Parts: sequence; structure tokens; C-alpha cells
Amino acid sequence: MRRLWALASMKTLVSVLVGLAVPGVSVVRADEGMWLFNDLPRGVLKERHGFEPSDAWADALRLASVRFNNGGSASFISPTGLVLTNHHVGADTLGKLSTAERDLFQDGFLARSPADELRAPDLELNQLISIADVTAEVKAAVAEGMSPEDALDARRSRIAEIESREKDATGLRCDVVALYGGNLYHLYRYRRFTDVRLVWAPEEAIAFFGGDADNFEYPRYDLDACIFRVWENDQPATIETYLPVAREGLAEGDLVFVSGNPGRTQRLLSVDALREIRDHQLPRQLDLLRRREVLLQQFSLDGPEAARRGRNSLFGTQNGRKARLGALAALQSPGIFEAKVVDESRLIAALSQDAELRPLLAAWDAARANARAQSELQGSGVPLSSQLFSIAQRLVQLAAEDELPSGERLPEYADAGRESFLLSLYSQAPIYPDLETALLGDSLGQMLERRGADDPLCTRVLAGKSPADRAAELVSGSALASVDVRRALVEGGRAAVEASDDPLIRLARLVDPEARRVRKLGDELAERDRQAADLMMKGRFAVRGTSEYPDATFTLRLAFGTVTGYREQGREVAPFTTIDGAFVHEESHRTPEGPQQDFALPASWHDARERLDLATPMNFVCTADIIGGNSGSPVVNRNGELVGLIFDGNIQSLSASYVYSDEQSRAVSVDVRAILEALEKVYGAKELLAELP
Amino acid sequence: MRRLWALASMKTLVSVLVGLAVPGVSVVRADEGMWLFNDLPRGVLKERHGFEPSDAWADALRLASVRFNNGGSASFISPTGLVLTNHHVGADTLGKLSTAERDLFQDGFLARSPADELRAPDLELNQLISIADVTAEVKAAVAEGMSPEDALDARRSRIAEIESREKDATGLRCDVVALYGGNLYHLYRYRRFTDVRLVWAPEEAIAFFGGDADNFEYPRYDLDACIFRVWENDQPATIETYLPVAREGLAEGDLVFVSGNPGRTQRLLSVDALREIRDHQLPRQLDLLRRREVLLQQFSLDGPEAARRGRNSLFGTQNGRKARLGALAALQSPGIFEAKVVDESRLIAALSQDAELRPLLAAWDAARANARAQSELQGSGVPLSSQLFSIAQRLVQLAAEDELPSGERLPEYADAGRESFLLSLYSQAPIYPDLETALLGDSLGQMLERRGADDPLCTRVLAGKSPADRAAELVSGSALASVDVRRALVEGGRAAVEASDDPLIRLARLVDPEARRVRKLGDELAERDRQAADLMMKGRFAVRGTSEYPDATFTLRLAFGTVTGYREQGREVAPFTTIDGAFVHEESHRTPEGPQQDFALPASWHDARERLDLATPMNFVCTADIIGGNSGSPVVNRNGELVGLIFDGNIQSLSASYVYSDEQSRAVSVDVRAILEALEKVYGAKELLAELP
Repeated sequence: MRRLWALASMKTLVSVLVGLAVPGVSVVRADEGMWLFNDLPRGVLKERHGFEPSDAWADALRLASVRFNNGGSASFISPTGLVLTNHHVGADTLGKLSTAERDLFQDGFLARSPADELRAPDLELNQLISIADVTAEVKAAVAEGMSPEDALDARRSRIAEIESREKDATGLRCDVVALYGGNLYHLYRYRRFTDVRLVWAPEEAIAFFGGDADNFEYPRYDLDACIFRVWENDQPATIETYLPVAREGLAEGDLVFVSGNPGRTQRLLSVDALREIRDHQLPRQLDLLRRREVLLQQFSLDGPEAARRGRNSLFGTQNGRKARLGALAALQSPGIFEAKVVDESRLIAALSQDAELRPLLAAWDAARANARAQSELQGSGVPLSSQLFSIAQRLVQLAAEDELPSGERLPEYADAGRESFLLSLYSQAPIYPDLETALLGDSLGQMLERRGADDPLCTRVLAGKSPADRAAELVSGSALASVDVRRALVEGGRAAVEASDDPLIRLARLVDPEARRVRKLGDELAERDRQAADLMMKGRFAVRGTSEYPDATFTLRLAFGTVTGYREQGREVAPFTTIDGAFVHEESHRTPEGPQQDFALPASWHDARERLDLATPMNFVCTADIIGGNSGSPVVNRNGELVGLIFDGNIQSLSASYVYSDEQSRAVSVDVRAILEALEKVYGAKELLAELP
Repeated sequence: MRRLWALASMKTLVSVLVGLAVPGVSVVRADEGMWLFNDLPRGVLKERHGFEPSDAWADALRLASVRFNNGGSASFISPTGLVLTNHHVGADTLGKLSTAERDLFQDGFLARSPADELRAPDLELNQLISIADVTAEVKAAVAEGMSPEDALDARRSRIAEIESREKDATGLRCDVVALYGGNLYHLYRYRRFTDVRLVWAPEEAIAFFGGDADNFEYPRYDLDACIFRVWENDQPATIETYLPVAREGLAEGDLVFVSGNPGRTQRLLSVDALREIRDHQLPRQLDLLRRREVLLQQFSLDGPEAARRGRNSLFGTQNGRKARLGALAALQSPGIFEAKVVDESRLIAALSQDAELRPLLAAWDAARANARAQSELQGSGVPLSSQLFSIAQRLVQLAAEDELPSGERLPEYADAGRESFLLSLYSQAPIYPDLETALLGDSLGQMLERRGADDPLCTRVLAGKSPADRAAELVSGSALASVDVRRALVEGGRAAVEASDDPLIRLARLVDPEARRVRKLGDELAERDRQAADLMMKGRFAVRGTSEYPDATFTLRLAFGTVTGYREQGREVAPFTTIDGAFVHEESHRTPEGPQQDFALPASWHDARERLDLATPMNFVCTADIIGGNSGSPVVNRNGELVGLIFDGNIQSLSASYVYSDEQSRAVSVDVRAILEALEKVYGAKELLAELP
């Protein structure tokens, strides 16, 4: 019942709130939380689940976890470097490796031997080696009474210094991460893998069975999985710590753990900030997403090749639209918002009664002003979006920033991150001029709408042409599709960039002052907000102790939960689906002309139907606390063995940006048994299966 | 090349402007203009085309022309009441006559005898009988120095009085129409037909062949036609004046005439007003259209029946999005805008030099302020959209308005229009609760976004529920789907409405004060703008004479043009396509899985292929000046014989809201020969063909 999703979610979210306990130290939190690996919720795990993780257990899970640096999670599943993630996490790479002749989405892929594997053009995987607390060192950089601008510069400089020093000392990728909105700073040290090759991907028809209609729904029947391999020195890398597949099956009621990189939550935001997000920021983001969705749909109507080229962007846009719509629905639900208001009121009341803590209340005023300013800033700037323009802009800014010491640059241009930066800038991934022209033309139009078409910068950008004509001229006239051209501009530095007559380089130079002006406003605002969040967090810690987990930061976290179904509109939703259910689901979406679009199983599955054990569990749900970025996270049992692969949350879970609930919100996983069954009987991947211990 | 449409349009529109003559009396206007039937462009027609229309010629064409009151044009084509229009003009009725079991879009329809014809639930057709100038009488109602509010009331009251008096005297529908932005007022007297029955419609697959991708494109291969019949006293009506089908074929270079009801142009707007439209109003309208488009697409994913229910709304939304995007692209094209600026500057310069005319310049200041206010007003109000809510709102307002004398009511509740009003209110057309819930839920969310979710009216409207839950409750709890319930509320008057506990009636009452407040602001703004337009028009007439046609007002106009191709991206586009071309077009959009969606010809056409004369002209283009509302207009030759049926404009014509050009802009028509060929050989409609003289 796809079209009823909003109803369903709202009906249930409201009922969740009836009796929702306001979080606080004395309350057992259910299976809530995205916990730091260096601050695990040992108390709750023991109290609720009688489970006491050993350090060895936690270290092994951490080391077997993998971050896809372009936005997803994964795990090592063999000593030979095999990496399991979602098909939709691998999709960016699948798209870059596809051509008009080799459509990996339509046909899937299986490398029969390592020599057949396809090398990703720009993928970087990270393995978290260690974490250190550098709060004191970072905070010492900011002196009392500094202006936000100076504080920002000082902290940036200190962070760049720490990252460079640690990288030089360890050879690892080193990122300083702000937690609790800047109350704590931790240093994350990662092993980087940049030679990553595709081993296996099923057809998109089974990986994303049910399409946009089923996305964020349950029950599901998707094999949203694919397998890569990390290589080093042109050999499959040797991986010491990986997840063995659980030989004993998963069952309803089992305790499971999710180790992955949730991208972003906003559970600690003030109510005023949430109000700005609800009434201004999310609606505007949704307008932009729908604009892009319609644009990409129109682009795709030009034929199958256009559809192939636009597919990944369209999927990402639809996924983002659906997720944000769910988040907005949660905030517009009076019950959920009211719970946030009550929670904050209690905290503020407690702070007001303590003379020492009372000064912290000023942070809420600051947060309100910051949120308002953030809404206003959202509609400004130079929103030019195309891959080629982004390359041009990075080249222009790199040339300027490299003339400064590392600590004074914009953070993405600092020395410590240079390898990852260049991996992306020198990507050989194909760039399609027709898609580029459509996206750039639309964003030029958007710039005119934002600034008014008579704005002097707009006039100079358009150079007397219409947005569409100007975009066509810029894209067709630019040589930046060539990696050699990019490399020459990087190596030639500022002089080369200034001498370039590439029209996109010239455009990037033209808009750079305005782009930097708006960037600076945003950075200063973020800094003021960090200062406010730091104070608010001090208040929370003082009143409620330190057993809060920080908001998600796309770094490794541990979540836990129970495999269990839920009630929805009066019906029980069972936790597991089966392979048989996929065939039934296809049948129930048949029209007179054949299966409805996105509901046709691939021919390979129909061919294998007789061989398959149809009772094999396909997908399952659990109560673990996840969000976007967790896609591809391994799900493990008490023994740390792989039982599943996170790939979605149900509709009810879309409130997770702001609030956790275990009444109906569920994380959705592929059961590892379905992966094994399909590898063996659909794909005949015996070489691959032999590698799994 | 669907995705390139914006490029193509811009490239060509810009080139059009190079050398575009600024309109003025001394310039022969090319084939520009949407002319009043009581003020035909006799001079231009004679000068350019050597054609002098007789009064009899013009009267016959006018009387054979038909207005679809729900937004389209048509013509009588037989003495037995047959009415030819576009399939997409009839689509609203086709949708209302379709059910899950009888899908008129998929299967088409042919009545073998009058008894088999399907009666439209709420269609009103109008035949223009006569026009009278009532400018003096209307303007006399407004005294010098009246406030806009009083002027509006006085003029409304005078117009209601004239309409009632004329209706009583003639028995005809009588509408006073403001022309030239209120510089002239004409009375249009119409014969009304309200028993309208469907005779023939082809399958949507050929009527809208190429779908959204081909919409506003050329070459085209569409049979966008259908035939209704008007009945009176349960008999086919007798029609004295109708269009005979031209027996001699149409050829390249021929002069043709279009008689139809263009909906709205804004060619006489001030540059400041255009700027507001470009930078604020059109972008916001586009955001809302894209929002609705995505919503309806999501709704349609639920399955074939959902798709059927949402189809008409989705088509209308996509069509509106594409048209407005073209209009915005025109305004964002520096060349086109510059031409508008130059034209206005010359007019203003001329007025400045004349002491007597100089005071008129104040009107431009007023227009600027009005346009700004209009942009601001656009984002306010209570944008609740659902058929059921609209019924509730009309019931609530009718009860209140009917307590006032006719002349003091909001115009749509005045006595003269009561029959048309009730025809719509009592429509038996199906209302789908699932679609209603989706639309109302989204518009409740939209109201929260506009006003902020903490707005007191929002809080009362939601009654503690989320937008989606509240919408479900309102729709499922309302009895307004029953026409009897509506009738009882109309007949019970204010007491019945106030006593009603129908949740949508209660909602309409709750929001009525706010809806009226915003309506009033809008009406007053329109009044101030009318006053400004009146003065600006005085200036135009003084400087340039009276040979200007008024902006379109969805009333009958005559356009004329030449059947001729154009050059596009270096290629010649021929004026005619053929039936053979449709088969070629299908073939060129074939994917490995079969024809691309919207590019599959119906089985009936494949079956008839051998019988068809494939060389028969299918569609053609001409230079006539048309816009939305002209859909379904007859195209006639010098002899007043039917040669075609307007159904679209090409991409280049989307600038027509603001400027006419004949370099590439073309009106697109179905050739009447294709209609005859298909009726005979595809549909075997010999009874119908026998009725055509």
C-alpha cells in the first residue's frame, strides 16, 4: 500500500508517543542508541539482554567493519579481502563501471577469478584502527572571548595540525571528529583501501525489487547486496579480522548488533532549531529534491541510454525525497513534536533551578538565532551543480588554498586529506555531457530564481545567453572531462588556473568570491552553533549524567536490537520474509501487460526457482537504532558472526533523525542465508563461496 | 530529443529576438494576434493575405465555435449536434465516465447509435450568440476618487446587475468580460448546452502518442481528437451553423484561421510585473506543480487502478509544469526580456514627452507595487485542495452569500451564473477517497509549511493529528460524496450548513474567515491592478492607436496563420507529418523489452495498418497565434471549411504568454483527413461519418 505510507507512518508514530518515556538516566532506554565503540552501553546491554561484550569481541567487530567513504557501510567477510555491502551502496561504482554496452544494473556481474574483477575508479574504503580523545588539545586552541571567526580559524588550524601529525606518525588516514555538537573531539585513525574491485553484483531487479514504491516499506524481498574485494600492491589484500558467516540460523527474538556508520541524526537539537527545520529548511530541501527528480525523469524519457545515465542520480534523489518527507511528517506530527517540547522543558526547568547551571540557558537563545540564520542562508549562494563544475571549482580553490599553510586552508584542502581528495578529483569515472548540460542548465536557472535574474553576477554568469544555452556552451567547451587536463591544472598551480581559458574554470573563478562569501557565513554560523551545542550538552550532562550517545557523525557506531515484528493497522507484521515471498510479491503486482514496473524478478531467478529452497529467509527486521549511512552495515549475533546486512528502515523509522522508538520502527536487513542461497543456486558462484570461511 | 527541449527552445527564442520588430501601428504584425470577433484585423488580413472576411463568414465561424466551459475549445461539425474537440479536452469527462471496469482511456469508445452515447456528468458547452459593448455602463458605476475596495464592490454590483438583466431578457448565459485589463467591458451572450454525450474517443495511446516526452514537441503523430454530441430535451440538438469538412486538402503555404478561446496571455503587462513573475511567481508555481507531480506519481505506483484514478490530474500537472517551465525559460532568456524592456521604454519615453499623457506614468509605479504584493500574497492563505473540500467550501460560502442581494455577493455566487454553478456542484462524477486523502493530506502539510506548524489556525485544523491522519479522518468521515447530501445542504441554507457535523463542512467553516480575508486581499489587489492597466492601456492607445488586440480572456478570438515549417538546429522541420510517420516513430522508440512507455500504438492501429492510406497527413503546423485554452479549436480555410484541430504548440511557442514570434513558434494541429481516415479504417465508424455533411 505504497500511497498510504504517510498515513501509516503518522498513525503509528502518534500512537508511539502515547506513553513514550522522556529519555533520562533512570530510564532503561529500550534498544536505543548509536554508541561509540570507545564508550559502549555496557550497562543497558547487561540489564536488558544479559550480554557483556568483551574487549576482544568489540575490537574484532570494529576491525571487521568497513566504511565506504562515499557514504555507506560494509564488512570484511573473508581473509582474502572480500567486502560485503549493499547493492545500493555499490551502485555509485556500478554506474561508473557501466557503459552503453555493459549495463551492470540490468545484467549483474560475477567475476569467476580475481583477474576478472572490475576496478572501481574512485572508491576509498576505511577500516577504523583506533580512536583517541583529543578534546583537550582541540579546545585549548580557542581562547576565552575569541570571536566566532577567530575561534573557527584557531580550531581548524589545530585540527589540521593534529591530523597531519598523526598521519605522519602512523601512515593512517586521521580524522578529528566533533561529537555531541563539539563537546568532545575524538581522533579516528583509519587504514585506507583505494584499490577496490567489484566481485559480484546481482541484477538491480532483485537488489531493488519493488523499486521506489517499496523503498522504506516492509515486508520486503530484496537481495540488496554486492561484494567487492580490497587489493594492495596488485594482490588481493590480506585481512586478519573479518566476520565469519553464522552457521546457526537467526531466529525471532534473537539479540543482534549493527556495526556501521550512521550519517546524521539531530536528536540533540533545540526545539527552536527543529521548528526552523520543520517550517523552512525541510520544505525547501524537498522543493529542490522534487525539482531534481522531475528533471531527471524528463531526462530519462529520451530513451534507455539516457535512463541508464540518469539512474543513479534519480535513485538518490527519490530516496532523499522519501526520507525527508518522512522526517518532515514526523516533525509535523503534533505528538512527536510535543514530546520534544516536553523533554526540553524539563531540561530547561532543571537548569533554571541551579544557579551554577542557569547561565547555560543563554545557549538556547543563541541556537534559536542560529537556526533562523541557517534558514535564511539556505536560499543564497551559487547553487551550480554538475560534476564538471565541481571539478572546476575544486581546481580553482585548490590553487588558491595551496598558497596558504595547511592549517589556514579550508579543511578539505589540508595536507592530511590530500590523497583522498586527489583520488576523487582524478576519477576516471565517465561524465556524460548530456546529463551535465541538463543539470547545469537547471541550476543556472535556479541561481537566477534565487538571486533575481537581473542580479549582476547572474548577468555575468549567463553572458547574454539563456540558462540552457549557456549550460550547453559551458559543457561542450570544457576539457575537464579529461583527467590529464585536471592533473595539468593541479600541477600548474595558480598560474595555470589563472591562464586557463576553459569556460568552466573561468566560470568557477567568476563565482568563487561569492561562493566563498556564502561558505564563510555558513562556517561561522556552524561555529556559533557548535559553541551553543557545547553549552547545551554541558547542561544535559550535568542534569542527566553522561549516558547519552552523541548524534550520528558518519563514524563507526554500535547499535543493538531484537529480531521482532510489529503491529501495523491492526495486523501483525512478521519479522522474516522468505524467497518464496518474492515470487508471490511479483505475482501480486501483475497487470494485464505483465509484471508492474520494478516488480519483475530477473530471468535468472525464474530459471533457478526449482532449485531454490523457497523457505530460505530473505529479509528480516530488528529494533536496532539506525539511519542513512548504516546501509551495508553487518548485522551480527552474540558470537560476532554475520547474520545479515542492513539495507533499509521501514516507514515508521523515518522519524529516526529526531526520535527513536521501538514500537514500530524497524531496521530492515537482508538475511545472510538468502545471500548464500542465491550465490549458490542463482549465480553458481562456487569460487566465491569457497572463499568464505 | 525530449531532454534537449529547453536548449532547443532557448537557442531559437534568442535568435528570434535578433531583429524582432517592436510592435507598433506602422509595423505589419506578421500573423500575430488573438482578435476579437467584433474587431477583426481586416487591415492586416487584406495587406498580408489579400483576404477580406465577410460578415457572414465571420458570423458562421463564430456560431460554429464551441467553448468547453471547463477549459477548452471545439466546433460543431454536423447539423445533428456533433462537437469535435481534443481528446485531452474531453479527458476530464472521459475520466469521470471511466470506472475500474470500463477504462475509456485504455480502450477508447464508439457509440454505434445515439442511444449508446454516454452522458457527461457535469459538462457545459457554450456557443457565442452575440457581443455588446457595456464599457460605459460598467465604468459609470465607479465614481472618481473611490477607494479600490469601494470601486470593486460598485463594479461587481453593476456587472451582476447587467448579467442578470441580460439573462432574464434573453434566456442566454451572459458574462461581462474585462478586456485590455479593464479598459473595455464587453457582454458575451452564450447559448448553454448541458446535456453533452460522448460519441467517439480513440485510445489514449494514439491520442497522446509520445506522452509527456512528446508533449509540446514537433514533429508529432497524435490523433488528439474526440467527438461529443449536444442534446436538448433528450434529443440530439439541431444546430444550424456548423463547419463542413473541407473536401479539398490543405497544403503548405495555405492561409488558415483558428477560432477558439485562448485562456490567458500577459503581453500587455509592465516589465516590473514580468520581473516579479519571472523571479518569484513562476518559480513558486513550478515548485507546487512539481510537488503535485511527484505526489501523483507516488500515488499511481500503488497499481493500475490507482494509476487510472490519478491519470487526469497527473497529465494536467505535467502539462502545466512543462508549459510554465517554457514560459519561465522565455522570461529568463536575456534577449526576450530585453525586447520587452525596449518596447516599454519607448512607450514611456513617448508618454513622458506629452504633458497631457505624462500623468499616466504613475500607473507603472502602481503596477510595480501591485506585482510585488501579488508575489507576497501567493504564499499565504489556506491552500487546501481536494474535490470534497472544494464542495464543502462552496456549500459554506453559498449559504452565507445567498443571504445577500445578488450584486453584493462574490461573483461566482451571483444569480446569473447559478445554473452553471449548480451543474458543477451536483456533478455525479466519481470521487475517489484514496486520491482525495492523498491530495488533502499533502495540502494540509503545505498549509503547515506556509503558515508554520505552530500557527493557531493550523493547530485547530489538525486537531492534534498529523496532516496525513487528519486527511484520512476528514475524507472517510465526510458524506459529501453523495449528491443528495449536497442538495440537502443547498436547500437547507445557512441553518443546515451551520448544523452540519460533516467534518469537511466544519473544516470549511473553520477556515472560511481566513480564506475570505486572503480572497479579499487578492480581489483588491486585482482591482488596483485593473485601474493601473486601464491607465497604461490609455497610454498605449494614445501613442500607438487602437490596433492592439487585448490579452487573452478565455473568450472567443480569431487567429490566423500560414501552414509552414521552420528551421531548428540547422534542420528543416516540414509542416506535415503522415500516418506512416506514427509507425516509424513507434519503431524508433523500441527497447529490447518492446516499445518504450507512451510510444506503443494501440492494437487497433496495428490491425488496421494494411488498410490505412499511410500517406494521409496526420498533424501539421501553422503560424497562428494560440495558447492554452485554444486546445480543440477548429482550424478552417478561406472558405470556412474545417481542415484541422489545434492540439498543441511547439516548444518554441511557450514564450507566447509574453511575446509572439513566427520564426519558429508554431501551433500544432491534427489534420482532419487523419480523423476521417481513422474513423473509417481503424474504428469503422460509418454511422458517424454518415452524419458529416
